Amino acid sequence: MNYSIHIGPNIRQSPYFQATVADGVRSFSVYNHMYIPGTFGDPEGEYQRLMTGVVMWDVAAQRQVELHGPDAARLAQYLTPRDLSKTRVGQGRYVPICDHDGWLINDPVLLKLAEDRFWLSIADSDLVLWAGAIARERGWQVEVFEPDVSPLAIQGPKAEDVTAALFGDWVRELKYFWFKQTELQGIPLVLARSGWSKQGGFELYLQDGSRGWDLWQAVKAAGAAFDIGPGAPNDIERLESGLISYGADMRRQEFRASPFEMGFASLLALDASFDCVGKAALLGMRAAGTKRQRSGFIIDGPAVVGNAAPLTLWQGGSAVGWVSEIAHSKRLAANIGVGLVDGAALDGGAALHINLPEGARSLRPASLPFAGGR
Amino acid sequence: MNYSIHIGPNIRQSPYFQATVADGVRSFSVYNHMYIPGTFGDPEGEYQRLMTGVVMWDVAAQRQVELHGPDAARLAQYLTPRDLSKTRVGQGRYVPICDHDGWLINDPVLLKLAEDRFWLSIADSDLVLWAGAIARERGWQVEVFEPDVSPLAIQGPKAEDVTAALFGDWVRELKYFWFKQTELQGIPLVLARSGWSKQGGFELYLQDGSRGWDLWQAVKAAGAAFDIGPGAPNDIERLESGLISYGADMRRQEFRASPFEMGFASLLALDASFDCVGKAALLGMRAAGTKRQRSGFIIDGPAVVGNAAPLTLWQGGSAVGWVSEIAHSKRLAANIGVGLVDGAALDGGAALHINLPEGARSLRPASLPFAGGR
Repeated sequence: MNYSIHIGPNIRQSPYFQATVADGVRSFSVYNHMYIPGTFGDPEGEYQRLMTGVVMWDVAAQRQVELHGPDAARLAQYLTPRDLSKTRVGQGRYVPICDHDGWLINDPVLLKLAEDRFWLSIADSDLVLWAGAIARERGWQVEVFEPDVSPLAIQGPKAEDVTAALFGDWVRELKYFWFKQTELQGIPLVLARSGWSKQGGFELYLQDGSRGWDLWQAVKAAGAAFDIGPGAPNDIERLESGLISYGADMRRQEFRASPFEMGFASLLALDASFDCVGKAALLGMRAAGTKRQRSGFIIDGPAVVGNAAPLTLWQGGSAVGWVSEIAHSKRLAANIGVGLVDGAALDGGAALHINLPEGARSLRPASLPFAGGR
Repeated sequence: MNYSIHIGPNIRQSPYFQATVADGVRSFSVYNHMYIPGTFGDPEGEYQRLMTGVVMWDVAAQRQVELHGPDAARLAQYLTPRDLSKTRVGQGRYVPICDHDGWLINDPVLLKLAEDRFWLSIADSDLVLWAGAIARERGWQVEVFEPDVSPLAIQGPKAEDVTAALFGDWVRELKYFWFKQTELQGIPLVLARSGWSKQGGFELYLQDGSRGWDLWQAVKAAGAAFDIGPGAPNDIERLESGLISYGADMRRQEFRASPFEMGFASLLALDASFDCVGKAALLGMRAAGTKRQRSGFIIDGPAVVGNAAPLTLWQGGSAVGWVSEIAHSKRLAANIGVGLVDGAALDGGAALHINLPEGARSLRPASLPFAGGR
């Protein structure tokens, strides 16, 4: 099945949109009300480049929610059960965000830009509405808005060389998830060692949307010596590496999941003194214990082609969870997937299956990640 | 430019998805994290059928936010500056929703299902997060969630005949925006006289996602005698009719607009005694007066092909607003568009222009709607 996507004014264009068009983008999806490239026509080559070379991705759709003002730190801490008291200016943190019942509604990276200024670099839900409602209903002194900030990712084993060629060797010392305000050819940006792969790399948080074309061309030019090419966040690599995709793996509206179920227990500071959204519910969940758990799966049989929608996980005639995404990994010579499963179904040991278009397939639980990162 | 869209588990499928595939859907967009059909391959024929016959649309992406519980009515009223005190059970209302600064964040239809139960049938933003945060931060006794409810629209001058053939002649007495709980072949649904066109019709709010295929086939079968065909919300008709598209015409994250600017002043009850989100800001806006206003535009020159992104509206060298969407209307033998413009630019009378890919085009303000509805 191949469907076209209408490019219209109701979905936003990334500042890199025209550059990706010029470089041959073939497909888009939509993320945070913005077009995000899918593939440039060579999925296999794009994967190989990520694993062995360097790719550049338009991930502007990873929008920011800025918290700015005297109560910004207070709001940031109230939004997540992760303890932010030791987070320094210049440091990023992966911060699960829960609703008042303890269900995940987003899993952004928090960037602490100043003591009174933060970005939440968000997954695909309107966290700006959530954070804004809470700030104003509490009467806190903090502005909550989406700034003109659009990440461009450089990923892969040669990403550091490309980024050093652009910014200087100091980038080699930048620690994982740390960032620095800088500029390139007069283009203001925040440079972070981060990205939605486990192959290493950086994200350039462009702070002037009118310069998207220029930044794309600068990265492309510096990367030419390293055979850089365009690509997009890669589903196969993310499954191999055990990365979480909010929206696919869980979503508040359906397939809802708690931080305990998603394996985030060690990130939560529920015994700390600070209050946060959902604290009572999360304490209740912790006391009651978690019935479901995130798991990897190895799917038997010939290579799968991926799935268009989450798959119910069956044990005999009982639904015991779901498999959110599957793919064939050539690197691992296996069909792999991730999902959420009732722990009792794993203990029982009885056979599990999913129903693919061509028929039922058996599968076995596997620990995550499937493959090590860099 | 023709791009494909990846069908993957990170975007939800409508309960009608497989039925639209079987009936030849060619393109999708994404709305409320769900695929929504764009065209079935014959845009001209789909428009003509809407204007002269009857079409069926998968508008499941128009998701519902349910408010249910003792404080549901209190929350509904707090969310909108429109007075709901005279809204009856069984009645719908178009309710602008503003943030605390008075900017629009959604413009849903509210359906009052019971004294303690409402649906907000939403445009493309996560209002479930907004309403949920407010309810819980206030400690109100109301559940806020997305129910299993997926509208299917029947629109066009013959929509009433098709709907009467399905449900009986009582539907002919249903007043605009009123609705009734009913069923069809054991499929539970809410039937409303509503829809995102001005050609008349109904929306069937399917209440069991597992029955999407069945409902689609039932409507198709009853509609066959009236030459029903599949389609989708139509940009040309919506421009002709002056319908608002949140996301295209305005969006909180950029191109933000107030209810005054969008022409909703008569819907606001700011002198009533009830409190609502943004009331102080809206009173301030009213006192200060509105500088910008929504307007239609007639664009000179040969037929336009539509726009991929909002267009800056220029008066000489000054940006004086934006034109959100343009199209060529064969019915009106004119290029039409809608946008938001600085009122002073209209008073001045100096020439306006937009820049299209092929060059500058002059345009003139026009009152909305361009054409009458049914």
